[in-house]
Order: sequence, then structure tokens, then C-alpha cells
Amino acid sequence: MAIQTPLSQRVAWAGNQPISRLMHLALARPELISLAAGFVDPQTLPVETTARAVETVLSDPRVARTALQYGSTPGLPELREAVLERLAAADRTTAAAMRLGVENVVLTAGSNQLLHLVAEVLLDPGDIVLCAAPTYFVFLGLLAGVGARAVGVAADEQGLIPAALEEQLQRLQASGELPRVKTLYVTSYHDNPSNVTLPVERRAQIVEIVKRWSIQGHIYIIEDAAYRELRYGQSDVPSLRSFDSEGDTVILAETFSKSFSPGIRVGWGVLPPALVDPVCELKGNMDFGSACFNQHVMAAVLRLDAFEPQVAVLRKHYEAKMTAMLAAADEYLAPIEGVRWNVPLGGLYVWLQLPEWLDAGIDAPLFGRAMAGGVLYVPGEYCFPAEGVPRRSHTIRLSFGVQNAPRLRCGVAALAEAIRALQTTFGA
Amino acid sequence: MAIQTPLSQRVAWAGNQPISRLMHLALARPELISLAAGFVDPQTLPVETTARAVETVLSDPRVARTALQYGSTPGLPELREAVLERLAAADRTTAAAMRLGVENVVLTAGSNQLLHLVAEVLLDPGDIVLCAAPTYFVFLGLLAGVGARAVGVAADEQGLIPAALEEQLQRLQASGELPRVKTLYVTSYHDNPSNVTLPVERRAQIVEIVKRWSIQGHIYIIEDAAYRELRYGQSDVPSLRSFDSEGDTVILAETFSKSFSPGIRVGWGVLPPALVDPVCELKGNMDFGSACFNQHVMAAVLRLDAFEPQVAVLRKHYEAKMTAMLAAADEYLAPIEGVRWNVPLGGLYVWLQLPEWLDAGIDAPLFGRAMAGGVLYVPGEYCFPAEGVPRRSHTIRLSFGVQNAPRLRCGVAALAEAIRALQTTFGA
Repeated sequence: MAIQTPLSQRVAWAGNQPISRLMHLALARPELISLAAGFVDPQTLPVETTARAVETVLSDPRVARTALQYGSTPGLPELREAVLERLAAADRTTAAAMRLGVENVVLTAGSNQLLHLVAEVLLDPGDIVLCAAPTYFVFLGLLAGVGARAVGVAADEQGLIPAALEEQLQRLQASGELPRVKTLYVTSYHDNPSNVTLPVERRAQIVEIVKRWSIQGHIYIIEDAAYRELRYGQSDVPSLRSFDSEGDTVILAETFSKSFSPGIRVGWGVLPPALVDPVCELKGNMDFGSACFNQHVMAAVLRLDAFEPQVAVLRKHYEAKMTAMLAAADEYLAPIEGVRWNVPLGGLYVWLQLPEWLDAGIDAPLFGRAMAGGVLYVPGEYCFPAEGVPRRSHTIRLSFGVQNAPRLRCGVAALAEAIRALQTTFGA
Repeated sequence: MAIQTPLSQRVAWAGNQPISRLMHLALARPELISLAAGFVDPQTLPVETTARAVETVLSDPRVARTALQYGSTPGLPELREAVLERLAAADRTTAAAMRLGVENVVLTAGSNQLLHLVAEVLLDPGDIVLCAAPTYFVFLGLLAGVGARAVGVAADEQGLIPAALEEQLQRLQASGELPRVKTLYVTSYHDNPSNVTLPVERRAQIVEIVKRWSIQGHIYIIEDAAYRELRYGQSDVPSLRSFDSEGDTVILAETFSKSFSPGIRVGWGVLPPALVDPVCELKGNMDFGSACFNQHVMAAVLRLDAFEPQVAVLRKHYEAKMTAMLAAADEYLAPIEGVRWNVPLGGLYVWLQLPEWLDAGIDAPLFGRAMAGGVLYVPGEYCFPAEGVPRRSHTIRLSFGVQNAPRLRCGVAALAEAIRALQTTFGA
């Protein structure tokens, strides 16, 4: 038997992300109603539109051969141009006014690959990333893997609190750690997990604060806008990027995974000039650019004007499911003392706060009881950075993405029953 | 103006890979005959087969929705099963006899992403990777980016020399550096750049040597088999993996990029058990698994028995181009004293050795003269690890992948003319 060698330091840092235990559970118990997975609803996936777009790409042999060949590392210029124009239009301005050209856009395998590339380019072990608490748990896993420190900033029902950001930066300055702060991570639309959209005033304030604190080193903002298109009723708000008049601070990450298809997996980053070359060099070493075929398919979807109708379908569909989950929550959860939630206006999640004494963690009684009752959820504690703000274990992320309305209702009812049972046993 | 912060240590390590200068040149001078790019010939790309496979995937709504949804991190079981069966059949054995199950296979964005994942999982800064000299330059860039040391092992016209590997390991033991040796990287079929296929005896010897030297820590072998299918005439040989009877040493990287389509970009790794979880955890944080749609398309290509016919087309097509390049070399290069090359039996490259006094580097006169004459090549010196074996700057990698026969001929003629001109000016 050969001697084993420890794997890299990064493997040790990444440890066993708690979320893998949850995913193994979900796979092992497919009969459960999963309110855990952040998947999109298979019923909404654009089968015919994709077929039409592929047909467009493959029916012209010249285009087809380009699509089946290697592309460039930053990706298909037509699609980069298109996403830039869409960004400018959504922000009610022009690419030029945003100081953006096609060279600032890099296409990636979903927005997650962009987050990974940016983390690699910005962070050394021990560097600090500020995040709202709670925040996207996959990003926390990614930070752990590069040995970075995630430091939480308090958030309320409108998202990251600018004053709390200011205070956290003051504290870090006082402790001499300000030079280690490399970036602030913000999910700016219908965030995962708490499903809040930062109001316009906070966006402007956050950009201003970060620029003002770039005194011992430049601090970037990573704006994760993966859920921007998934708004139901609420009107769109301009990106944080649109408040970065110098164009040197905000890194914008977006994707067609939620708004079109995760199986096609085309995301992109809009990068400050200083990061374009380092990100592309790294991506070049990694995969020479993401699959060109998929970029051509997405470009065709946009060219055929087939994207907006698909988004309209999604909005209607998810709004109905959100309404079903909220109705079930009103019916089953509202009567339970100390249980509350934000009423979302988009996204895929409902963020639940339980009475403080009630631990929702994977090893606590509630999780087991909920599973016994047939429902799986994401313990909210996974979404808290290790530092900065106390981990709140009495929280739960529920997703209305995958299940249909009757199953959403059953799942929420089962969860309510599990909470009631524990309240009877241990409660006040 | 905000203060700039240095980017991560990794960005500094990666530096400006020399190959980026070459790629910028190629993009800026599209009129040149590029014998540099390792692309496949667009004329061979499987447009109709892809259309048929996509049609199969999208015509069944249930399958279509699965393909457009998120998949699992290691990828579509059907495709993982299929590549495993193909591997076992090619190695004239069974998956069970190779101690392999579907759980050992991870689908990636080309084999390059697998190389990247494995490097992340195995290597800390300062760790040593042994490589044949010359070797695949993109892998050298990737190693630089993680701060690893690439140490060359001498190769001849049959590839990596087992005795040289043994000697290098002895030297590293003597210097106390053996514990830092984490892996040996071998391109086992029609390698890039020198286009040699390791003979069977050497395969067995190399696996034996590496296992025997796993005394101060386990040493893995990364077997890059990207070009395995591209053999013209030569019969197939078993993989290095087939000589790893314990199944704990060889990491096999393969891809459909060269044998089917780089635009669809589906690669895979066959991993020793100890690496499956760390690679999947890392990949999960990075992209949750590669695009599911592409995996379904490749599975359909195999199911439709459309893969072998496509490979047969490729073989015929590239063999003709290889013959054209070799004929041009015989005509124009053979008469020049001191110029020689291996006659390949597959792959996409001809590896040229010039007289020792003739520097083929990007800043040396030959490169400029060749460009002035209308031809672009890859300086062979990019393919040499920084340590272990002296960099041989009198070498050139020529690719016959992209250009047609007349242009291959023109390109080789122009290169010969550039060499002759310098021989007249500086030569013996």
C-alpha cells in the first residue's frame, strides 16, 4: 500500500462544505418534498426555443462550424455585445456612458465560474471579503477554498445596511486589517437566500462607501445579479455597476442559468479594465474560454427575440408558485408565535425566521422531524459568514423553484407541523 | 484615483504567459498562414451529426428538460458509463478488471478543466511536477499559476525516457526534494508538441517506477490522452491507466474536443478513489458540474453510433494533411543541413529540430523572418519546463490541424526559406 500524501492546502481549507451533507441527503431521499434545491422548475425550461436557436446555428454551415470550433477566451463578441446592450438598456443608460465596451465582458460557465475567477485573481489566503449576513453559501464555500476570510455585514429586510458596512470598515481599520479587505460581495437582486433587492439609495451609498474606504488598497465590489430577471411585479432598479462612474470598482456577475437554462450554462462578467487581462489569462489556462456552441445558441435566442417571451413565461410561472408558498405560509406558519418571513417580490426563495430558541441546523431536532414529515430545507446557518455577525441558526431558506403548488403547500404544512411539535416539547 | 492593490500572488506567478504574445500576434495578423494554432480543421466539424444528436435530446420533452436543467457535479451517469466502457474496450479489458466504476468518472469542460482541478487538488506552491521535456505548454502555464515547479525529464523519439525519470527521482531524493514531487504529467498519445506515442514497454515501466518511488509520499501520474483517437495507421496501445493495477496512481484525462468538437467541449477524468471527492467538491464550488445539455448531446452521439464514423472521417482527413505537411517538409526542409523531425503517426503536430545555433524564439531573427514570409509557428522553447532539462530554443512546433494542403505546403516553404536566409547570413 502506497503512502498517502496530504492533498493541497486548499482541499483542507475547503473542508467538507456542510452543504454536501445536505445534497447527499437530498439524493438519498428522493421521496422528500425538497424545498432545499435552488433549481429552476423543469416545466419552465425553454425546449422549443432552444431547438429553434440550435436550428438557426446549425443550418448555416459557416456559422455551425464556428460554433463547433474553439472560440476565444473571453467568448463570442456578438453575445458579449448583446449582454452589454441589455445591461445598458436595463440601467437606462448607454454602454459608453458606463465606460464599457465589449472588451470588459467575459463569458463564463454560469456566473459561478466568474465568481471563482475573480476570487482567484483578487484573493490571497487570509484576505478579507465582506459579505451581507446571510449570503450565498456556495460563494462562502468558494472563499473557504482559496483560504480567504468571509466577514459578515449586518443586513435587514432591505439587504446590506450601509451604516453597518461603514462600521465594519472602521473596525477593520482600527484592528489594522483594512489592507486585507479586497472586496465586498453583494447579491443585488432577489438575493439568495433572503430574497431582498437592495433599494436604489443603498446602492449609491454602498458604492460611495467602498470607494471612500479604498485608502489602504483598492476595494472591489462583486455584484452578483444572477436573479435580476426574476422579478414579479416589482419594477427593475439600476445595477450597483451603474453607480460606479469611474468603472473601476464594480465587478458585475450575471447569467442566463436562472432566466433561460442552467443546462446551457452561459454566464458573464462585466469587469473593470484592470481585471480583464488577469481574468482572461486565468480562464485561458483553465479552459480556453467556455463552450462556443452554447454561446452561439444564446446569441441566437437573443437574435430571434425569444428571450423576453421566455422571461415573461418564467415570471408568471414563478409568481404563481411564490403566491402558493406564501399562502401556505400564511395558513400554516403565521399562527405559530415567533415565525416570520419577508414577503419577496421575485427570486426563488422565502427566508424564514424561527423563534430564537429553535435551532434549524442539520443536527438539531427540527431538521430530523421535518425530514420525518417529508420535507427538506436549507438550514439558514449555512448562509452566515464565519466572522463579523453572529450566525443565526434559527433561520431557514425555502425554495419555491422546483415543486408545484400542491407540493409547496404540503411541504410548508409539514414544516409547520415539525415546528409546532418542537414548540410543544421545548417551547415557551 | 483610487489606490491600486496588487492582485493575488497567483496572478504574479502566472505572469504573462509567453503564449499570450503569440496569440495576440496571430489575431493581429490574420493574413499569415498559421501553423501555430492547435485548433481542429473547421471542415471536419460534425455539423449534421450534432444536429441529429440535439434533435434526439430535444424531441423527447422529458429528456429535453433534464438536459436544460442543472445536472450533478460529476455529470450525466449515462455518458460517464459510456466513456468508461469505451476506455475498457480500448484497453481490451473490463471496467471491473480496471477497478473502475462510474463513480470514478467526472465530466469536465474539456480535459483542460480536469488538469486544472487536479492541479488544485494536488499541488501547493513549491510542489514539484515532473514532465517530459518538451511538454504541453498550456499545462506549464497552469502549473505556474498555482506556484508549482515544473521539472523536465528527458524524452527521445519514443517519448519520456524511463531511465531519465529514475535518475531525476534519484537526484530529487538526494537533494531532499522528493517529498515535494506530487505528480508526473505524461501525454501518452501523439503528444503535443512532439507527437510521439509512448510504447507499451515504457508505459509499464513508468507506472512501475512512479509506484516504487512513492516512498516519501504518494506520487500520482496524470495521463493526458487528449489525442488518443487521432491515430492514422498506427494501432492503438493500452493506456498507462491499464498498468495501474491498484487503481490508485493514474489520473486519466480525456476529451471529445479533438475527436468530435471543441465547441461542445466535453472532457472527462478517470480518477483514483482518493481524488473523487476533493475534485468534485472543488468543481462544485466552481460551476456545480459542466453544462448538462452538452453532456446529453455527446451521450446521444454515442447512442446513435455516430461517434466512430466521425472519428473515421477525421482520421482520413488529418492523415492526408499530415502527409501533405510531411511531403512539403521532405521537399523544402530535408535539404537544409541540421533540420530534422519525427515522422508522426497521428495527432496534429510536427516537431522540428533546427541546427543548434538557430534560435526559433519569438524575439530571435528567424521568427520575424518567417512572419515576414507569411508563416506563424510556435517556438518550441515554450514547451520546456523551467528546470531539469535545458530549454531547447532550436525547436519548433508546427500544426497541420487547420490549414488545407496547399497552404500547409506554402507555409512550410516559407519557413524553409526563412531558415535558409539565416543559414546564409549566420550559418556554418
